[in-house]
Amino acid sequence: MSAHEGVAEAVGVGAYAVIFTSLRTEGDQGYAQTSDEMVALAREQPGYLGMETARGPDGVGITVSYWRDLESIRHWKACSDHLAAQRAGRERWYRAYRVRVCRVEREYAFEAGR
Amino acid sequence: MSAHEGVAEAVGVGAYAVIFTSLRTEGDQGYAQTSDEMVALAREQPGYLGMETARGPDGVGITVSYWRDLESIRHWKACSDHLAAQRAGRERWYRAYRVRVCRVEREYAFEAGR
Repeated sequence: MSAHEGVAEAVGVGAYAVIFTSLRTEGDQGYAQTSDEMVALAREQPGYLGMETARGPDGVGITVSYWRDLESIRHWKACSDHLAAQRAGRERWYRAYRVRVCRVEREYAFEAGR
Repeated sequence: MSAHEGVAEAVGVGAYAVIFTSLRTEGDQGYAQTSDEMVALAREQPGYLGMETARGPDGVGITVSYWRDLESIRHWKACSDHLAAQRAGRERWYRAYRVRVCRVEREYAFEAGR
């Protein structure tokens, strides 16, 4: 599915998904730049498998990042630049969020015309 | 978090998340109405715990539905009106999608001003 930017490649059963669902505050307040930086930084982390993100006009956003194992997720959560972004998120960018760490149990895909 | 429309309530460790990531085709083609109907129908199903959805201007959409157990997911997947919608999705609405069924292993939340 590499031709489909935005839908992560297969990650495999036993991989982990971190579902981050959030409601933004008003205005950018430095959010867009840091968000881009965090995406680039996540890609460099050990165990990173992919990311999907969408935010609708109602301000609800969902970002799902995929990881090889729980250790990779712990490492990324404790990354110092990421910790600073998490703090700014609570102080300025998010009215609310919920994080769910999940183990992938099944995975399948569809592509039109295949 | 009931005051925060769009972010599902806590579902608890051991619940299941179905992550549906998709790329839409051009135009509505009956999508919006069926989508609303499927959301309403899902809410009535046994084991339904919540839903979160976002679609950005790039056409990438993520819908996460939460369920009590795998049996509830099987039941919803095989629901006849839902089967018809899945078929229309493959024929008309989606260029590509990927589905991941995941077990929730950890869950936490943030609310500003709490």
